[in-house]
Amino acid sequence: MSKEQRAQVDAMLRQPRPDGPRSVEEIRVGFEALMARMIVPDGLRTTRTTLGDRPALYVEPGDERGEGTRTGTILYFHGGGWVFGSPETAMSLTGNLVARTGFRAYSLDYRLAPEHPFPAAIEDALSAYRALLDSGEDPASIAFAGDSAGGGLSVTTCLAARDAGLPLPAAIVAFSPGLDATRTGESMDTKAGIDPIFTRENLEHTGAMYLAGADPHQPLLSPAVLADLTGFPPMLLQAGTNEMLLDDSTRLAARARAAGVDVVLDITADVPHVFQSFAGVLDEADRALDRAALFLAQHVRKSGTAAGSAR
Amino acid sequence: MSKEQRAQVDAMLRQPRPDGPRSVEEIRVGFEALMARMIVPDGLRTTRTTLGDRPALYVEPGDERGEGTRTGTILYFHGGGWVFGSPETAMSLTGNLVARTGFRAYSLDYRLAPEHPFPAAIEDALSAYRALLDSGEDPASIAFAGDSAGGGLSVTTCLAARDAGLPLPAAIVAFSPGLDATRTGESMDTKAGIDPIFTRENLEHTGAMYLAGADPHQPLLSPAVLADLTGFPPMLLQAGTNEMLLDDSTRLAARARAAGVDVVLDITADVPHVFQSFAGVLDEADRALDRAALFLAQHVRKSGTAAGSAR
Repeated sequence: MSKEQRAQVDAMLRQPRPDGPRSVEEIRVGFEALMARMIVPDGLRTTRTTLGDRPALYVEPGDERGEGTRTGTILYFHGGGWVFGSPETAMSLTGNLVARTGFRAYSLDYRLAPEHPFPAAIEDALSAYRALLDSGEDPASIAFAGDSAGGGLSVTTCLAARDAGLPLPAAIVAFSPGLDATRTGESMDTKAGIDPIFTRENLEHTGAMYLAGADPHQPLLSPAVLADLTGFPPMLLQAGTNEMLLDDSTRLAARARAAGVDVVLDITADVPHVFQSFAGVLDEADRALDRAALFLAQHVRKSGTAAGSAR
Repeated sequence: MSKEQRAQVDAMLRQPRPDGPRSVEEIRVGFEALMARMIVPDGLRTTRTTLGDRPALYVEPGDERGEGTRTGTILYFHGGGWVFGSPETAMSLTGNLVARTGFRAYSLDYRLAPEHPFPAAIEDALSAYRALLDSGEDPASIAFAGDSAGGGLSVTTCLAARDAGLPLPAAIVAFSPGLDATRTGESMDTKAGIDPIFTRENLEHTGAMYLAGADPHQPLLSPAVLADLTGFPPMLLQAGTNEMLLDDSTRLAARARAAGVDVVLDITADVPHVFQSFAGVLDEADRALDRAALFLAQHVRKSGTAAGSAR
């Protein structure tokens, strides 16, 4: 059953696409159309708001709660190579995390390249986190989460927060995070052709827009290769074996272990980049999201209660 | 809070022990006394039985269920370096898995070295699995689980089952598995002194009893170094960063990913070998067991229902 599902998802992603590099506008519109096909859980409440200096989508579980009810907070960073995507394109992922945890989420509309290259996205993410803290939110009640480039931001924003002397969030959940602008992972070669989404060429095409000439050999661009993760909160890294970015996760996990950080490296076979988007269609996606929800419940304190008693 | 707990557990394990190699009998009695201090969940029903040619402890959840109620089955392999331990010494682990999943477990009293060296334990484990299958148990309803040497057996028994042409179980859960008789993991050196339990000397002391002169360079003795895991069911490997056997798990996980196997490598920082035994005392132990229970519920079919709907 699920083997068929995995094959269907792969075939869908391999559908013919235009030859040659597409314009930024074409990429953005195409990604929006693709992600609009993903299933968002029913009954969530979404509100447009701002966080720091940027727009954000505030996502709450649908069930009625008393005014004073406190819960965990997810600061979510959408994917899209730092060039495309928005809180809306990640609503399947953000919504599934909210629905499965009962937490609330802020999904940040951070600035994108090429208009705003590195480090604009990290600045926006850090500023959003600072705004949460300034509003009185307990860092022990906050998790960073994100997919792809946004999974990368969940890690690099935590690095930036640590370097700024801020208290760190309680957990990080990253779906197929992009963590290496040097693109030196073995999976960049071993998974070429197997990955139904990426080629080295298209990764470098959008990657160059984000870099805008910056040296990729720095922790905020290539944490899987260069970051010291000392002091980091527990991390859950999920990826598929059919993706060129697989070793971004395996190498970050090794660095986390070396730094004495709790880390779950959760790999699903024969599924593509950010397969969790296929929740409701692919059993592996739902299961991975359930594992992510348990991880968040275990590590994020609901304000006013002890961490770990959240479930 | 939990940092204190981790330190307490470490200090307890470092309490002075007799100098020099101990006799097999001393090791067995000492381990029994240590493990008798672990907390077993209340209300389980345990029955002595046999499985294949060996005694086993049958462990059921305490809540009343109808006669016809079907559930998942855990075939559990206790730890103890293939030289010591018994179903009783692993009751905290087996019992916690049963209590948290609602599954039943058979904990196998496999033959021990030096009286019965390699491959006696694997023969007994395979024979127990065959007995389960012969009794009509659906392999999709069976998980292998174990700790330390028993975690190793959960993997090598699956290898032996595959090589015997048997259908494979639905999942493997291994706590700090021993997977490398060549003892070539980096953590054998990097964690020396940090590991409060093991030294290379004491690992080799009992290891030699199990080997009894066999070449360690074979998949059934060193699966982390040599096994082809093609076709394996989803695996959850949990270990601590304070253990010399850490890289048994990291290397097996890498082999699993390479073979296209779903694998969760779940590492907790600053905890020792088989820290899950400290459930009820150490928060990380309870959380790790909850993650293991979710993993089992996701992958093991309750007879008569579809896998994944178990929770």
